[in-house]
Amino acid sequence: MYSNEIQAILDSLGIKPGDTIAISNGGESEEGVLMPRSDAGDNSVIVIKRKDGYNIGLRYSKDMRITKQASGTGHFEFPKAITTTNGSLNNVALLYTGGTIGSKVDYATGGVYMLTKPEELLHEVPELKEIVNIDVQNLMSIASEDMTCLEWRKIAEGVVKAFDKGARGVIITHGTDTMHYTSAALSFMLQDLNGPVVITGAQRSSDRGSSDAFLNLICSAHLAANSNIAEVGICMHKTSSDQSCIMIRGTKARKMHTSRRDAFRPINSSPIASVDRNGRIEYKSEYRKMSAHGTRTTAMTGFEERTALVKVHPNSTPEILDFYVEKGYKGIIIEGTGMGHVPSSTSKEEYSWLGRIKNTVDKGVVVGMTSQCIYGRVNPTVYRNLRLAASAGAIYCEDMLSEVAYVKLGFLLGNYKAEAAKEMLNTNIAGEITARTEFEPEFTE
Amino acid sequence: MYSNEIQAILDSLGIKPGDTIAISNGGESEEGVLMPRSDAGDNSVIVIKRKDGYNIGLRYSKDMRITKQASGTGHFEFPKAITTTNGSLNNVALLYTGGTIGSKVDYATGGVYMLTKPEELLHEVPELKEIVNIDVQNLMSIASEDMTCLEWRKIAEGVVKAFDKGARGVIITHGTDTMHYTSAALSFMLQDLNGPVVITGAQRSSDRGSSDAFLNLICSAHLAANSNIAEVGICMHKTSSDQSCIMIRGTKARKMHTSRRDAFRPINSSPIASVDRNGRIEYKSEYRKMSAHGTRTTAMTGFEERTALVKVHPNSTPEILDFYVEKGYKGIIIEGTGMGHVPSSTSKEEYSWLGRIKNTVDKGVVVGMTSQCIYGRVNPTVYRNLRLAASAGAIYCEDMLSEVAYVKLGFLLGNYKAEAAKEMLNTNIAGEITARTEFEPEFTE
Repeated sequence: MYSNEIQAILDSLGIKPGDTIAISNGGESEEGVLMPRSDAGDNSVIVIKRKDGYNIGLRYSKDMRITKQASGTGHFEFPKAITTTNGSLNNVALLYTGGTIGSKVDYATGGVYMLTKPEELLHEVPELKEIVNIDVQNLMSIASEDMTCLEWRKIAEGVVKAFDKGARGVIITHGTDTMHYTSAALSFMLQDLNGPVVITGAQRSSDRGSSDAFLNLICSAHLAANSNIAEVGICMHKTSSDQSCIMIRGTKARKMHTSRRDAFRPINSSPIASVDRNGRIEYKSEYRKMSAHGTRTTAMTGFEERTALVKVHPNSTPEILDFYVEKGYKGIIIEGTGMGHVPSSTSKEEYSWLGRIKNTVDKGVVVGMTSQCIYGRVNPTVYRNLRLAASAGAIYCEDMLSEVAYVKLGFLLGNYKAEAAKEMLNTNIAGEITARTEFEPEFTE
Repeated sequence: MYSNEIQAILDSLGIKPGDTIAISNGGESEEGVLMPRSDAGDNSVIVIKRKDGYNIGLRYSKDMRITKQASGTGHFEFPKAITTTNGSLNNVALLYTGGTIGSKVDYATGGVYMLTKPEELLHEVPELKEIVNIDVQNLMSIASEDMTCLEWRKIAEGVVKAFDKGARGVIITHGTDTMHYTSAALSFMLQDLNGPVVITGAQRSSDRGSSDAFLNLICSAHLAANSNIAEVGICMHKTSSDQSCIMIRGTKARKMHTSRRDAFRPINSSPIASVDRNGRIEYKSEYRKMSAHGTRTTAMTGFEERTALVKVHPNSTPEILDFYVEKGYKGIIIEGTGMGHVPSSTSKEEYSWLGRIKNTVDKGVVVGMTSQCIYGRVNPTVYRNLRLAASAGAIYCEDMLSEVAYVKLGFLLGNYKAEAAKEMLNTNIAGEITARTEFEPEFTE
């Protein structure tokens, strides 16, 4: 609810959420649809949705002039979806899982809610029917922060089923928050992939003028229908402008901004390809290609849930390792500082991690080390403290992202014996480790 | 130790670590000092330090030709430091704390170790004596991963003392791993600052040709001696080339690469200034200025050590919150996904965080929310799950970095009552929160 002061003024002008209003404040003026204020918002800020789709918040002041331009029309509805089948186009499955790309704003409450009929997505993007025949599967409708390994399994099985049914490629629509965790999980789970698996989503819901949903869907369709990439990748905006997309390897992607359209960046690697709305695909790096002799795609969906990701920082307590050991955890990724440091010989003994890492490893828990720097590579050979952590038994995970190392370790422990998992953690499986090139400077310091 | 195969060849050629050798492999050839291989390294890779200072690793193969060029000279020593006092230059204190900038490689062991005489730094950079009179204080000699709030206090007190003794500015040399945690701590602890406090370090030790130590020290000296910035900042390379540095606000800096010279980036803000080796300073954004009426700088050094930083991820257990509550923790920063999400209504109930956040807040613990995206702003008003987390009592920390929010919360709880700390967590104190500008698009979705 707005503050009593604002509400009184709106009431006196007969203005309700959904109405189009104009607000001027000195020289500047804004026009748009009045949004209801959510409980958690700053109730002295008036929020309107402009014609360009952006919501803006204007802090109320006494010299603001507010006028009603038009009455609101209340809820709006997407028209019914139209799907077509065109014999000259390739068949692609679209697995719908939820997220912003399948959401719209409810003008009555101001909240974002999810579509219950994912086919509505297709109606919004008429270009799709010129690119591809799409078979929409409604797998689930959840926000991506609520994804767990159960959903990863369900999606992996959905992909297998889609290929079995004859799809050439698969598009997965997904919320963006944990999209890179899911892309890593699918990269490890899917075996003998022989077509593109393209995960896409939107940072802004599709009822907004500035939505990235349309371009992301169009580019994903081009990739799924026409690229020869036999890998899992994330297809999202290349830059903040609405021009083209990139496909980032599923194990090398990370959401690096809360709201920008180009939030997903390739880390320690190039994108696999770039693609524009006309279907021009440019391959940017080595990748696994589709083959005429490809075998059936299957899924290894085991996942050890008792796997943890722990971030160290100054004054952090290593007792957290004991906590996980006592709960029966089988694997822990430590997100260290720099090249993979943990507090080692601190002035306060209780903040030193080395002894507890050794204890944890001695109890049979697989411990991996990554860096909270995000970019770059951990390296246990440079500094004394690093060598000590490595001899305590921590496995240094090269240039793997922390999130990917976590997913990989859970996957390995869910499908292999601990000893094998330990071996494989540092062996490249799905592009998650970039090899050092011989004769290339090592930058070991 | 190298592999038996390599060791046998080296022995047969009379080559020991420290000797200069040449290795050719087909067309390519490399020359440099043979480094000993540490226990944790890949023992089938021969490591040499080239003339340009880079260590490179060459994987051994049978067709490699190895020849000895010269015998090693063992340890090397820096010559004695030279300090001068020039009446026309400003007085600056240099507080030495350790880290790579004060390290050199021990050619006998291959390890990096720290200088015990920080004055040696000055000898390495003769340009300094043309810029500034430096008074070196040896505060401590520790690797930055071992920094705790005790060291933060000691450094803050060192800064106060330096200003009391008449320094115009202060340089702090520091390891890079946790430099941004320390810069945040000093930003909050130092009160009524009236001169530049410039933290600097090196990604590569100063005995290397490619070391960034020299330029970083020179630029820091220019800033400390001649800028009018009355803030704490990090001065490190602007780009990967050795041209100029930037000063990043102490609360807006983050180490974003394990090894690059330009690893420190300003997050959600511009740098305060750029500076080159000739002392040309360009101011890039608003900052707090030195004043002729400045009062004495003091330090508020309280810090609540029972403050935690917790990163959520799919399948993460919220029981970690109970662990901290039981240990008597007073504050927890949750590094959420996207705009500040936690798993909220997961298919497996045990992974849902909302109820446990509420319990934690109800027990009087201050809970703050940041984003693991790093860039961008958390926002509790957009999605339903966000509003639920906010109503459970989590304080959304705007565009604050997770690491900064952690340090700030520890600082607040160490110096104020919990209620006040809670209020202040979301109030800008030292540039850690960038305000939304009125009439600027909010990007609320």
